[in-house]
Amino acid sequence: MSDSTDFHFTDYDPYDFANRRHIGPSPAEMEAMLDVIGYASLDALIDATVPASIRQQKPLSWGAALTEREALDRLRETANKNQVLTSLIGQGYYGTVTPPVIQRNILENPAWYTAYTPYQPEISQGRLEALLNFQTMICDLTGLDVANASLLDEATAAAEAMALCKRQSKNKVTAFFVDQACHPQTIALIETRAAPLGWTVIVGDPMTDLDPADVFGAIFQYPGTHGHIHDFSGLIARLHQTGAVAAVAADLLALTLLKSPGEMDADIAIGTSQRLGVPVGYGGPHAAYMAVKDSHKRAMPGRLVSVSVDARGNRAYRLALQTREQHIRREKATSNICTAQVLLAVMASMYGVFHGPDGLKAIAQQVHKKAVLMAKGLEKLGYTIEPEAFFDTITVDVGHMQGLILRAAVAEGVNLRKVGTTKIGMSLDERTRPSTLEAVWRAFGGTFAVADFTADYRLPSALLRKSAYMTHPIFHMNRAESEMTRYIRRLSDRDLALDRSMIPLGSCTMKLNATAEMLPITWPEFADIHPFVPADQALGYKEMIDDLSDKLCQVTGYDAFSMQPNSGAQGEYAGLLTIRNYHRANNEPHRDVCLIPTSAHGTNPASAQMAGMKVVPVKARENGDVDLEDFRAKAEQHAANLSCCMITYPSTHGVFEETVRQICEITHAHGGQVYLDGANMNAMVGLSRPGDIGSDVSHLNLHKTFCIPHGGGGPGMGPIGVKAHLAAHLPGHPQDGGGEGAVSAAPFGSPSILPISWSYCLMMGGEGLTQATKVAILNANYIAARLNGAYDVLYKSEAGRVAHECIIDTRPLNPAAGVTVDDVAKRLIDCGFHAPTMSFPVAGTLMIEPTESETKAELDRFCEAMLAIREEARAIEDGRMDKTNNPLKNAPHTVADLIGEWDRPYSREQACYPPGAFHVDKYWSPVNRVDNVYGDRNLICSCPPMEDYAEAAE
Amino acid sequence: MSDSTDFHFTDYDPYDFANRRHIGPSPAEMEAMLDVIGYASLDALIDATVPASIRQQKPLSWGAALTEREALDRLRETANKNQVLTSLIGQGYYGTVTPPVIQRNILENPAWYTAYTPYQPEISQGRLEALLNFQTMICDLTGLDVANASLLDEATAAAEAMALCKRQSKNKVTAFFVDQACHPQTIALIETRAAPLGWTVIVGDPMTDLDPADVFGAIFQYPGTHGHIHDFSGLIARLHQTGAVAAVAADLLALTLLKSPGEMDADIAIGTSQRLGVPVGYGGPHAAYMAVKDSHKRAMPGRLVSVSVDARGNRAYRLALQTREQHIRREKATSNICTAQVLLAVMASMYGVFHGPDGLKAIAQQVHKKAVLMAKGLEKLGYTIEPEAFFDTITVDVGHMQGLILRAAVAEGVNLRKVGTTKIGMSLDERTRPSTLEAVWRAFGGTFAVADFTADYRLPSALLRKSAYMTHPIFHMNRAESEMTRYIRRLSDRDLALDRSMIPLGSCTMKLNATAEMLPITWPEFADIHPFVPADQALGYKEMIDDLSDKLCQVTGYDAFSMQPNSGAQGEYAGLLTIRNYHRANNEPHRDVCLIPTSAHGTNPASAQMAGMKVVPVKARENGDVDLEDFRAKAEQHAANLSCCMITYPSTHGVFEETVRQICEITHAHGGQVYLDGANMNAMVGLSRPGDIGSDVSHLNLHKTFCIPHGGGGPGMGPIGVKAHLAAHLPGHPQDGGGEGAVSAAPFGSPSILPISWSYCLMMGGEGLTQATKVAILNANYIAARLNGAYDVLYKSEAGRVAHECIIDTRPLNPAAGVTVDDVAKRLIDCGFHAPTMSFPVAGTLMIEPTESETKAELDRFCEAMLAIREEARAIEDGRMDKTNNPLKNAPHTVADLIGEWDRPYSREQACYPPGAFHVDKYWSPVNRVDNVYGDRNLICSCPPMEDYAEAAE
Repeated sequence: MSDSTDFHFTDYDPYDFANRRHIGPSPAEMEAMLDVIGYASLDALIDATVPASIRQQKPLSWGAALTEREALDRLRETANKNQVLTSLIGQGYYGTVTPPVIQRNILENPAWYTAYTPYQPEISQGRLEALLNFQTMICDLTGLDVANASLLDEATAAAEAMALCKRQSKNKVTAFFVDQACHPQTIALIETRAAPLGWTVIVGDPMTDLDPADVFGAIFQYPGTHGHIHDFSGLIARLHQTGAVAAVAADLLALTLLKSPGEMDADIAIGTSQRLGVPVGYGGPHAAYMAVKDSHKRAMPGRLVSVSVDARGNRAYRLALQTREQHIRREKATSNICTAQVLLAVMASMYGVFHGPDGLKAIAQQVHKKAVLMAKGLEKLGYTIEPEAFFDTITVDVGHMQGLILRAAVAEGVNLRKVGTTKIGMSLDERTRPSTLEAVWRAFGGTFAVADFTADYRLPSALLRKSAYMTHPIFHMNRAESEMTRYIRRLSDRDLALDRSMIPLGSCTMKLNATAEMLPITWPEFADIHPFVPADQALGYKEMIDDLSDKLCQVTGYDAFSMQPNSGAQGEYAGLLTIRNYHRANNEPHRDVCLIPTSAHGTNPASAQMAGMKVVPVKARENGDVDLEDFRAKAEQHAANLSCCMITYPSTHGVFEETVRQICEITHAHGGQVYLDGANMNAMVGLSRPGDIGSDVSHLNLHKTFCIPHGGGGPGMGPIGVKAHLAAHLPGHPQDGGGEGAVSAAPFGSPSILPISWSYCLMMGGEGLTQATKVAILNANYIAARLNGAYDVLYKSEAGRVAHECIIDTRPLNPAAGVTVDDVAKRLIDCGFHAPTMSFPVAGTLMIEPTESETKAELDRFCEAMLAIREEARAIEDGRMDKTNNPLKNAPHTVADLIGEWDRPYSREQACYPPGAFHVDKYWSPVNRVDNVYGDRNLICSCPPMEDYAEAAE
Repeated sequence: MSDSTDFHFTDYDPYDFANRRHIGPSPAEMEAMLDVIGYASLDALIDATVPASIRQQKPLSWGAALTEREALDRLRETANKNQVLTSLIGQGYYGTVTPPVIQRNILENPAWYTAYTPYQPEISQGRLEALLNFQTMICDLTGLDVANASLLDEATAAAEAMALCKRQSKNKVTAFFVDQACHPQTIALIETRAAPLGWTVIVGDPMTDLDPADVFGAIFQYPGTHGHIHDFSGLIARLHQTGAVAAVAADLLALTLLKSPGEMDADIAIGTSQRLGVPVGYGGPHAAYMAVKDSHKRAMPGRLVSVSVDARGNRAYRLALQTREQHIRREKATSNICTAQVLLAVMASMYGVFHGPDGLKAIAQQVHKKAVLMAKGLEKLGYTIEPEAFFDTITVDVGHMQGLILRAAVAEGVNLRKVGTTKIGMSLDERTRPSTLEAVWRAFGGTFAVADFTADYRLPSALLRKSAYMTHPIFHMNRAESEMTRYIRRLSDRDLALDRSMIPLGSCTMKLNATAEMLPITWPEFADIHPFVPADQALGYKEMIDDLSDKLCQVTGYDAFSMQPNSGAQGEYAGLLTIRNYHRANNEPHRDVCLIPTSAHGTNPASAQMAGMKVVPVKARENGDVDLEDFRAKAEQHAANLSCCMITYPSTHGVFEETVRQICEITHAHGGQVYLDGANMNAMVGLSRPGDIGSDVSHLNLHKTFCIPHGGGGPGMGPIGVKAHLAAHLPGHPQDGGGEGAVSAAPFGSPSILPISWSYCLMMGGEGLTQATKVAILNANYIAARLNGAYDVLYKSEAGRVAHECIIDTRPLNPAAGVTVDDVAKRLIDCGFHAPTMSFPVAGTLMIEPTESETKAELDRFCEAMLAIREEARAIEDGRMDKTNNPLKNAPHTVADLIGEWDRPYSREQACYPPGAFHVDKYWSPVNRVDNVYGDRNLICSCPPMEDYAEAAE
């Protein structure tokens, strides 16, 4: 009865993550697409697209790809090597309780985490509102006028504060004062930033060491890293007298009980919002904040959400002052390496909405109460508590018992902070339990119960907060979970993210963020590890980071990686610092010229400038390639001082340039190092390795190429890989003893999201990653082929091919039809799409990157939308449609448009259901086109009054 | 500096789950609401509403309520007491891999899990499509014509199949044949069901023991519980010759490789869809299926999704043949205790969509391959494999080594099945790894590697499947995760669930399903435990079930609980069986009369009928109360044979009747037992205990009162509590040796969702639960007060109060305005609401239950919508609005309405933005009003052809 002849085991692998989950087009679809492009096979297309000279010789491989389940098991095994103890280490990282409703509906919800930066405000109203709530909360707590929508971490925020002080100071000196009570990583970052810019950093006790005449600004920590709480009003007044600018690094939770920096007349406040519901995650990601006085707002770095109106005059949110963004200001951009952490800022803002001022105050009081109880117990044991008045942090001198007590505490399940060689510090937090206090007492030799003590309070009474905060109704909404759930859902429904359509951005690889990759990040074994725990408690993290680094080395051809940079731009900056360190170590500190093609990412010159380099632009040829002759000439001209060049590969025009090896050779020949921007690595992985081509250092965007979701504008991860000769010059960190060149607050940047990239590598395998690259190239070429004719596809290679993205020209639509690239972008919203990148690298064009994750059906839907838009423009050109009153100019159309009288020369149906749009499942823009000019002229950056909210429910 | 005089620790507890998360109205809101109702305090309202005679004396209490975090820690601790081994026990439960994209976006997504049963089709199109996919998949795999949208579990589905055989058989005998190869729990359930109905169950070998003339039907298992695979075609043909009906319990995964039951001419196929991506979860919940030949479809139990059209003639899905539902057919309902598991059916259907036929076949082949390899290893050890041909399950006679090998396997981390006293069985599955095979071999004494063997196959070649299945395009969609994510999102966006608005259903308590309660159910320690593991591997489950039972005893005043029933109606049935068992044990088997008020839930008489009882209706008074005199008269009249009465408290009219104690006394005085339907326990918890009032048994709806989400129409849990004298007569289970009276396939019903109810109890504490009850009563009385005047509020108590729900009369709108209750319900969709329960318990009325979770703002939004609807009706009455062309008759309005010409005598604005509707965040019904009559006349119950799908993307 067993007859194997008519039974065949299938070859189909339902668990093939690469080909069945992550890579969009099916084999049959790929064939159809290749037909359109005109190639017989995927490999033929790749061979015609990627120059043979740069192809890597050995296929990428690290053994068989794991299935989702195998990868999750591997992650679980690794996670279990981390030990989740209670950490009272503090130093900028505190235990916090993430409300489950926020965890599940924001952090774990693709509607939030797969969104892009809200550059297209019409389809981003939900997270813009959440960010406006964040800004409002920060303004209120700090007592300042304007807050931005988050920075990368507290330490970089402090460095940004220093730079802002420099810009705004009337005191034309070059020294900056840093309170020695700042967290060590904050001091380290400030020093890193100051050095290349030639600024002096004075670290000292502000009460004794600060002479306002000497400095352009100063930063104080409040409360200090060891718990001290000072009123800086007097110092700030003296700083102002000399024209210097004053910044305060302030703890948001403490500010619910303490006089605000604004009330001390500080110009700037910075800090982290981590303890507002965002897990510590071994250091990140978390959102830092910055708030400033009104007079500094236009100089403030970072993104700023503001209130404007749409074409109907209805309220609409938008990013204000976008002229400061890198794609416009290039090296003068102030938002360069400092932004952003939207997803985490949204979480913190929702924590504020959820708890309201009463809740935050109650939590702060409970934290203080626990700190007081802790102090009383230790006092009973005979210890002297330092300082006398404190919020959550206390320090005890234990002399030679330090090591013993720290180890005893670990044995009790608690990490305390080692301070110097004789002291122990501890910061109490929202999660601290009575049993934790008792455990600590036991470690100190006491056997008390919490019930033995009563809490009075030990905040400095002169600094008790009297001013109100978070008075806006949004922070007083009924906090029943039903309401929170619905508020979160309503906001997310306003936005268009990857969970509803492709986001074909040329400037950012918006590929699938697979669910299996997202699951581990909220496991406590990854989420609840303090960044400064003893190394043996983070062995799982070490294993993951080591293995991921190893894989990234294989991918790039580099020899070492640093995970520290928290964004691509910060990676560039860190990479250039590494080069700078290298030249200095070689006694060539004068090498400070950086060659950058004019076609480069705007962040390149901005990073170079911050790294203390002189930017020398290199011409681009008409076809977008680097002008090799000009490059050679500039390299020769600056040979004596050449530090490096920065190139992007494939180019920002989406082309594999044939001359890349020559550029590297020329640079090396003149004593320079090559920085190859890894933003476009999604076109290279498995096909070509920067390290083989001749590059010395690159950053990788783990949030693009390696699947970390964009989070609506952060988190990101921009680790840098270097050749062996640069490895010793990678960023250090004070926690590891060194500290020189630290670029992030935490040693490994934002490690809690690394499981995403690691599991992506594990599940794809080298072969899968290579296939992904090939299909990314296929998808881009398919779009280019389909749109060709209707639009000009710019910057093709000599073979007529593009890499993983293509640039199409919408400028021809303007002279005849008056249609701008903006009109096309807004009309795409009607079709249910996020617009491609606009006007970068060439004004008036669209850069389209479909990524490998998109299916043929989705690519076709997009192409049909684009072709229909071209036809609409043609109708205007031909005079068949009005030049000002047409679907392109009036886009996006909203339900509000349908409700009233319809006096337009086209139908409602044409308005709302252009090709591409779903019918039943149509995405409706919540607002009409947003007025940018109005918004910048009437800059309102906190929540508008309540009557506007009430209206929503009418 | 520490001056405690001007510093006060706040009383506000931000972690107060009861008052800040779960209970909607804030204290201030409650005051305002009490003002409207006219009471000085909540307690005064409660005292006026709940009769003193039934109030419980001792406050409900089990110590301090836990915070969310404490509760999650407690759950984690408990979960860790379960041991997750690999189980190859089979017997209807198999390892399966839940695709993460399904886990996160369906099982963990409130848009799916908080939805109600799709009785209102317009706002349920998403899950109706998913269920239609389920039905289509089941039809295809079983080779039958019509499948329903899920049953509770395989064993109850088998019992339903028996009942269907009885209804459809032309052979008028009363015996039913059961294949001895059916799973033991299937046999037990069939015996339980048959006994009260007086049917004989013959269990035997169908090849030798079945005489078709003797039976009205038969059921065979395919493959059998020990792996045997038979072709039942011959037997089925013989059964048909005698007019008997044939059912096959078939494994869906096996059917991808094996000839289908339909091809054997079976009338009915049943089984579980668990192994299609639904975790075993210690027994449930999972969705069972039933498919039948076309000729049986109108007799088939359960819900059936079908295709109809809406008012514009567009395709729309709906539940077909609703006339069979309990609220209409009462004791003749066929959908009574058997439905449904919508959430799990949706998961299984998405698993089918995700993998497609090629994927399912590949998975089935891999499972078979592993079974063959396993067999080869055991054969090499000298064992004889039984049966010769198999799919996934094999059995080995090991003689006296049984215990030794089973224990050795456990030591290797694998649970095998104990078969008899000398055999060991094992079922391979999707999760089985090579290492598992090797571990089993080691337990049998072998040290082979999987690589030592090659797989041929051992399926019976005569039964190899040749027919196609799952040919519909939906099962051939591109399975890139991007597409799956978007498909799931699009479907969920069509539906209105608790994550967007209140669902004020009188017939179902749709309260908050808090996120913290939902988190643990997907932990592997709860999700991945086989129901038949050794007891010491499920100590966490035991601890939870024991503690939850204990708390439920405290809540109800009962002495023992059984968690077995999987729905409220099944709980009723189980409770009546318990009473039946009790009378029989007391030698009073003749006691079979059940008194049921005419106002009872429709499930009551249906359950009584199934429990073999004679239903004697008792009159209701005009005010809805039980007519006490009639009750007394009927009890006297039937005293000799009185088995029990069934009452609902508070009554289905939403009133606390004063006479409930008397009813209990009368019943007891005449030898009967009292069954108190716990459907309305949300009005009693903490205030009144059924056990104190005089009731002997009740079921609780954990999916209503105790926060298990409704899942769009299941899962449910209907555990029953009993007084001590009934405890010995609770349902047993074959796994526990006994087996008498089993009502569910698994010993504890659906235990993997019990963490929800348990953590709810832990986080609320007794005090919180009591407060929830009070606020539920407050919210209902507030709505009654606000709507009073515009509508008549029916069935108030003498004090003018309602309990936790209120009935408003929409009949007066009909004579004058022609407005029906249906029009009101559909117009509420325009306002963004799910309609209250329609026409139950009184035709033409709406029963509104707001629950305690809703805030005043949401209650007001609902009241404003209802009041505006009344005004619209008045405009018709007054002749100011057309009688047939008005917003009520045309509701719900869709975007499609706005697009075309507007020829209605009211504005688009009035159509779409009635009071209550959100503006920017409006919920749009995806279809206009669905045509029910068309749907029942043109019954199409599987996916319509593809051109309709293509249209969606146009």
